[in-house]
Amino acid sequence: MVKVKMPIILVNFKTYAEATGENALKLAEMAEKVSDETGVCVGVIPQYVDIAIIAGKVNIPVFAQHIDPIPYGSFTGHVLPESVKYAGAVGTLINHSERRLKLADIDAAITRAREVKLISVVCTNNTLVSASAAALKPEMIAVEPPELIGTGVPVSKARPEVVTGTVEAVKKINPSVTVLCGAGISSGDDVAAAIRLGTEGVLVASGIVKARDPYKVMLEFAEAILKVQR
Amino acid sequence: MVKVKMPIILVNFKTYAEATGENALKLAEMAEKVSDETGVCVGVIPQYVDIAIIAGKVNIPVFAQHIDPIPYGSFTGHVLPESVKYAGAVGTLINHSERRLKLADIDAAITRAREVKLISVVCTNNTLVSASAAALKPEMIAVEPPELIGTGVPVSKARPEVVTGTVEAVKKINPSVTVLCGAGISSGDDVAAAIRLGTEGVLVASGIVKARDPYKVMLEFAEAILKVQR
Amino acid sequence: MVKVKMPIILVNFKTYAEATGENALKLAEMAEKVSDETGVCVGVIPQYVDIAIIAGKVNIPVFAQHIDPIPYGSFTGHVLPESVKYAGAVGTLINHSERRLKLADIDAAITRAREVKLISVVCTNNTLVSASAAALKPEMIAVEPPELIGTGVPVSKARPEVVTGTVEAVKKINPSVTVLCGAGISSGDDVAAAIRLGTEGVLVASGIVKARDPYKVMLEFAEAILKVQR
Amino acid sequence: MVKVKMPIILVNFKTYAEATGENALKLAEMAEKVSDETGVCVGVIPQYVDIAIIAGKVNIPVFAQHIDPIPYGSFTGHVLPESVKYAGAVGTLINHSERRLKLADIDAAITRAREVKLISVVCTNNTLVSASAAALKPEMIAVEPPELIGTGVPVSKARPEVVTGTVEAVKKINPSVTVLCGAGISSGDDVAAAIRLGTEGVLVASGIVKARDPYKVMLEFAEAILKVQR
Repeated sequence: MVKVKMPIILVNFKTYAEATGENALKLAEMAEKVSDETGVCVGVIPQYVDIAIIAGKVNIPVFAQHIDPIPYGSFTGHVLPESVKYAGAVGTLINHSERRLKLADIDAAITRAREVKLISVVCTNNTLVSASAAALKPEMIAVEPPELIGTGVPVSKARPEVVTGTVEAVKKINPSVTVLCGAGISSGDDVAAAIRLGTEGVLVASGIVKARDPYKVMLEFAEAILKVQR
Repeated sequence: MVKVKMPIILVNFKTYAEATGENALKLAEMAEKVSDETGVCVGVIPQYVDIAIIAGKVNIPVFAQHIDPIPYGSFTGHVLPESVKYAGAVGTLINHSERRLKLADIDAAITRAREVKLISVVCTNNTLVSASAAALKPEMIAVEPPELIGTGVPVSKARPEVVTGTVEAVKKINPSVTVLCGAGISSGDDVAAAIRLGTEGVLVASGIVKARDPYKVMLEFAEAILKVQR
Repeated sequence: MVKVKMPIILVNFKTYAEATGENALKLAEMAEKVSDETGVCVGVIPQYVDIAIIAGKVNIPVFAQHIDPIPYGSFTGHVLPESVKYAGAVGTLINHSERRLKLADIDAAITRAREVKLISVVCTNNTLVSASAAALKPEMIAVEPPELIGTGVPVSKARPEVVTGTVEAVKKINPSVTVLCGAGISSGDDVAAAIRLGTEGVLVASGIVKARDPYKVMLEFAEAILKVQR
Repeated sequence: MVKVKMPIILVNFKTYAEATGENALKLAEMAEKVSDETGVCVGVIPQYVDIAIIAGKVNIPVFAQHIDPIPYGSFTGHVLPESVKYAGAVGTLINHSERRLKLADIDAAITRAREVKLISVVCTNNTLVSASAAALKPEMIAVEPPELIGTGVPVSKARPEVVTGTVEAVKKINPSVTVLCGAGISSGDDVAAAIRLGTEGVLVASGIVKARDPYKVMLEFAEAILKVQR
């Protein structure tokens, strides 16, 4: 099975044209290449319909963008955790800022993810909400101040206190939760800063997907991680 | 390309265990067999993650269970119409009773479906709402009284006035809209009754998916349609 | 009982500071003064908590900003139509662009409004959605292109075709529905233009509430209506 | 100003016919009588439109059933914290099981409540979610297993481990948060059990509102509290 190890670079494909259909597969293959060349774990988060094809062709972790906290049954149009797992995903985002969930549903989605052995990555918007999410015992928390998402202004430089505050608050409530950060991450420097602030990786979207050369940017990110680790 | 013709039997896979992953493909293959043997159009509506694999293997119409009224962009966890189309779907449900949408979003979803050449099937709960949906110019409307869904009590027998009322109200506002009905349909007789009431097909879920022998039930449905047409 | 007659000026208080608590009552009293002086019907749409006090003190129509399509029962935090009526409202907005509803819920809310004798004013965003709403048989439809709301660019001048198109589409489906328009209305001229395009009134918020002298603006609106009627 | 002190009996009026309009005021007056006679704090939670009238006539704490995490502005149909405060409420429920909120919105609603000096009572459905809510620093948490709400099967007897587990988990994360419990509470015994399990009060709805003699039931509840305290 595909291995997930820290630190990790998680690439959110959103519904970007550059990461849909054929492009999604190409991007996943670039991620795999970077992963192979550097040994740094790079995971991809494609749209639902692209999960099966991508997971079938690349040997890196594939995550879903969302799951619904539902069992088998009458839930037309919902995203069943079992289906996502069966398609080859190893984990899932929960509560991304573009797909916020009710508190009780985050709890239920984490439980369902655990039941089908999907890694749960709960997205949060600030330190307090990160602490709150930590109490629900997900495997990872990715803090992303919404106002920085897609701006190119990196959270790890513009709001370092959000990152360190989140690491501290989360670890205090539940030391086994892995903390990532995201929003505005677009250079190796931003990634290195994130790691130095105590996170174990980054969640990135436009910084990679909309780059002129996504392969080059992912490589820069991975090398920045290697350099920090040395 | 796969042809959609009326009358049609549309099979909603929901998130039933019997219609997830491997089972989804098997069920779609049975539907294809019935379609080949009888010449009656049978369409399948699998979960998002299963669309690509099913559409790649069977030669019958595949529909999505839902699309979001969004363009390419920052919409993590949403269902992009382009992706559904690219995966091989020819159409989509919109506003199923288990995935209701806001009025303005139904309008926008129908527009987006048209833009990417997906057939829009708007689900409605009564005659008045069907008339309302007809004004938005979808290609099909499937009326399903929610209280009968999954009961085995067929709308075409228990509430025939809902079906005839919907056909009349929809045609008055927009004669080019195709009307289907659903809820409780579980025998060939129920299907025949639906056609006689003026619909051009049925939307079925548990009646087929949870049947002991789904192939046999689909065959019975198709033969009932052939008999009514004679 | 308070009389609602056309043409009408409907003033949406939203949650503006200038229209909350004490300010809400003052604004309603100015509306009453304009109504008394000109004979033009001016209705106010305060926040829920302010309905009872305002309806108890002024002799003009008071509307709610929203109702939930619910009966008596276990609906904590919801807005019961009976309560709004009991507090003294004569009508209610339904589906305002800042409080969009699912299609089936708009249908149910109109039905509930009728049951408790509240006038239903369904807000819509374009011509097609207005036609769709008309099929649900509300008493009034207020079309407001969302992109113009709060801009000061009047729908009646910037998008006259939306207004005439809505009047035509609504009347074709249901001639007994009254059509209003809103968004960007801020002068007597804008109001006159709206009436000339075939509407029977306007729905206004910031143009009045945030004006330096709301009384003067309402007076200007009412006089513009009188002038057009002559 | 009205004083809130522990232990407290909080009576949720929901949208019950027995607690709407005139009935709401009568019920609040009974609560005041019980409070006066026993010295036990009894708070009422009427519908939005009834807050002002009730808070103006009784000298007991009045709570809102919900607030939206919004500031002054363009939020038609929403519940502005300032308005609720101005109408005389001293606090508000947040995230009741019939009005669940997204996690980030619970955080924002607690912050807004604090800003306008409303006591925040966050409702939760289990121990883990209670811990999660505690991290957001509300003033109170009311745990209510949804499956027991309205059943007459008291949480304090049927699921004591949920109550003690919640008290423990909440206090560990934030000792200054007051814990209440609710669901199925209908006798003085149930209330006494709740207090003995470590809560500082109960949240009740049908057990009081739908009782043949609500005054008598509230009196029984208050006396049970006095007896436990001795």
